[in-house]
Amino acid sequence: MNKLPNIKTHFADWYQSVVYDAELADQTPVRGCMVIRPYGYAIWERMQHILDLQFKKLGIQNAAFPLLIPLSFLQKEKEHVEGFAPEVAVVSHAGGKELEEPLVVRPTSETIIHTMFARWIHSWRDLPLKINQWCSVVRWEMRPRPFLRTSEFWWQEGHTAHETEEEARRMAEQMHQLYRVFMEEYLAMPVIAAAKPPHERFAGADETFTLEGCMQDGKALQMGTSHLISQDFARAFGITFQNRQEGISYPFLTSWGVSTRMIGGMIMTHGDQKGLIIPPKIAPVQVVIIPIFKAENRERVLEATRELAKQLHQVARITVDESDTETPGAKFYRWELKGVPLRVEIGMRDIDAGTVTVVDRPEGVKRLIQWTQVEQTVEDLLVEIQQKLFEKAKEHRAAQWVVTDETLAQFGHRLAENNGFYEVGWSGDEKAIVALKEFGGTIRCVLPTHQRKRCFYNGSESRYDIVVAKAY
Amino acid sequence: MNKLPNIKTHFADWYQSVVYDAELADQTPVRGCMVIRPYGYAIWERMQHILDLQFKKLGIQNAAFPLLIPLSFLQKEKEHVEGFAPEVAVVSHAGGKELEEPLVVRPTSETIIHTMFARWIHSWRDLPLKINQWCSVVRWEMRPRPFLRTSEFWWQEGHTAHETEEEARRMAEQMHQLYRVFMEEYLAMPVIAAAKPPHERFAGADETFTLEGCMQDGKALQMGTSHLISQDFARAFGITFQNRQEGISYPFLTSWGVSTRMIGGMIMTHGDQKGLIIPPKIAPVQVVIIPIFKAENRERVLEATRELAKQLHQVARITVDESDTETPGAKFYRWELKGVPLRVEIGMRDIDAGTVTVVDRPEGVKRLIQWTQVEQTVEDLLVEIQQKLFEKAKEHRAAQWVVTDETLAQFGHRLAENNGFYEVGWSGDEKAIVALKEFGGTIRCVLPTHQRKRCFYNGSESRYDIVVAKAY
Repeated sequence: MNKLPNIKTHFADWYQSVVYDAELADQTPVRGCMVIRPYGYAIWERMQHILDLQFKKLGIQNAAFPLLIPLSFLQKEKEHVEGFAPEVAVVSHAGGKELEEPLVVRPTSETIIHTMFARWIHSWRDLPLKINQWCSVVRWEMRPRPFLRTSEFWWQEGHTAHETEEEARRMAEQMHQLYRVFMEEYLAMPVIAAAKPPHERFAGADETFTLEGCMQDGKALQMGTSHLISQDFARAFGITFQNRQEGISYPFLTSWGVSTRMIGGMIMTHGDQKGLIIPPKIAPVQVVIIPIFKAENRERVLEATRELAKQLHQVARITVDESDTETPGAKFYRWELKGVPLRVEIGMRDIDAGTVTVVDRPEGVKRLIQWTQVEQTVEDLLVEIQQKLFEKAKEHRAAQWVVTDETLAQFGHRLAENNGFYEVGWSGDEKAIVALKEFGGTIRCVLPTHQRKRCFYNGSESRYDIVVAKAY
Repeated sequence: MNKLPNIKTHFADWYQSVVYDAELADQTPVRGCMVIRPYGYAIWERMQHILDLQFKKLGIQNAAFPLLIPLSFLQKEKEHVEGFAPEVAVVSHAGGKELEEPLVVRPTSETIIHTMFARWIHSWRDLPLKINQWCSVVRWEMRPRPFLRTSEFWWQEGHTAHETEEEARRMAEQMHQLYRVFMEEYLAMPVIAAAKPPHERFAGADETFTLEGCMQDGKALQMGTSHLISQDFARAFGITFQNRQEGISYPFLTSWGVSTRMIGGMIMTHGDQKGLIIPPKIAPVQVVIIPIFKAENRERVLEATRELAKQLHQVARITVDESDTETPGAKFYRWELKGVPLRVEIGMRDIDAGTVTVVDRPEGVKRLIQWTQVEQTVEDLLVEIQQKLFEKAKEHRAAQWVVTDETLAQFGHRLAENNGFYEVGWSGDEKAIVALKEFGGTIRCVLPTHQRKRCFYNGSESRYDIVVAKAY
């Protein structure tokens, strides 16, 4: 088997190799589009399952809207079309004929969903309306990278309408926090939950909240967003309702989404030289059981293995790798590459001694465990691994985080060469954005604090604390 | 509220009104495309959940393949492109430029999935490979009808590859039977599980198995299909594997799918003049609790209602309709329209007497039940309703089913005027297909029996027993 590229010196190559070698995804002959293979899709299904339950508890209902949207719909909201028009895929022909009006493959569904909202919302009694859609969207991508940037990607997009701006803002903030807790508790990823600066907002949003993860190479990854949508959308799409005073009002709208990009973030946060490490709470397979046998004791070992599997099935998502076309060593290598949190080995010596060997993926510590203790041990270790991965990721981010009153001229080259998160002050001067670009950096978010006194760009008085970093 | 069109005299209008009024789906400004609204989508999610568990037990794994497929891929298999080319939506531009090669929005995914199979399959050890995808597909539709024919529809498409033809055939038959059992046990719909005649096969299939439901108007609905795919696909896409004799072989392929069309079938099988009737096993809401209160006893009734809800929550999927902007009568009407199997009413008189009123949707029988008996009653009634709906649907189909040795000239006008299923003999003469069209009929399937002696078309010796009907 091929060794992975060096994670320290060739992080980008390492990332792509892990994605393909661990069979999470594959390239396709369709430019910029990937296939999510079963192992990668099982991770996405875990994410969907957990989030979907949480959405439903908040009264959010799933629905399905058309994939194809008339081009004119995108043009109804000025900023929206400017943001998305360059990226869309356009259907010109269908059913053997040229279409009277071109359709675009949805890059996001605000325009069609708001069109339907206008049909469905009549009175304040119809509000709040909270809709979610699990689907794929298409945004043409010139430099695709699996899970991070592909022309098609899979996501959920939530869309809500509310009577008041306060309620809409609470909704956008609630989803923002729901995402943060999910990323921290399930993906074991520390994320900054903060607002985007105005120039980084969603095309047509009054406010965009973002979740920014810190990858092992010190670059940022935007992991999800939640928007307070401009009321211009309600006006553009004619969404009105009879308010409690029997007048006519425009509702306040939100939208929010997370995507398969989270899988990329998880890989780049936890992986190591051996490959993927999947946090136990999100792992499709938490424990792989590998029987170690020779021809003469094969049946006895497999019998004990199945007994063990039955036991562990009660406490974890498990798989048994029984195949006899591979050596145990080759199996170890493959399941390590795939990032399964725990490996349980069982051979003749174990059977005689009433033990098994339990090996954790992140640290590779081997533990000889009594058969009677194995369920408890596995349960405990899964909890411990989850916590340790989160702690390690937090430590790593702390090591990448620089709080400084230096100006860009002073720290820019360090950012350009070594990446990292720079917490600095900003006056709001937009020239800073262009200047940052030269060093490969962007303003990732505006922090809720205000402690840095000087603008990192021009040295004048600062208005905001921000985080500056390179980003995927 | 509007009354529904008469189900006996205006079945098609009745159907559309039920779909829209019960808020299952809605029309959109995108030609031929519908929105599945939350109530309709919740039914689809129930179907997905049940089927997905069954697929996984058979070792079928979910994955996600590109939505856009190069036009040339469709052209690799001659019959396939002839079947689908007239229906596809074509993307000519993307990312602001004309594409070098047009892409089609997938009408089905054989061509892209087989392309990936060629990359993934090397040895007999890689087989069987069993992949499924939940997604939407686009086939341009001139006469759209919600759930039955829309330009975009939602489905699952399974694709497998096998070492031997026997194994592939077993797989196609296994899925065919899985679908049949699902339709009978969950949707309470009797379906004919049989083979399609050659001219009705999937474009590029050696054999197509179909599930044919009988709607209340005596027309057939194809509810799902399972195909043994021609080995030409493996050749066209270069899928080969090293066989057990170390030679090179082409694998044998299957594909199989069911779609949101099943929702249409369910409506047309069980609905009545009051609207939808959803079989309990598939109903997103099995029991609606409606408190009956006046201003002066509102709190006491609502308190008892919530208590009751807590109890019933243990045994059924329930909802409580607490709103005080509607009369109980209006609520009854709406939940009947939506086809919820059971309604539980609770008012002051009930609270004083320690009773509730339970009303079943199909027969509208009111039962005064002791509070202590309510959970058991609900459980029992849900089972009973499920069984009775299936029995009634079977009786209805039997009443539509005509076994005859008559020729088309004799029964054709009855078919044209009154619909119905005609079980007749067929010599295999393809002229029969055109002749049938004049009466609006098609050959729905070839039965496994051979009891009819004369061909319904030309009176010659019959080779097959077939079912002839009009179809959606």
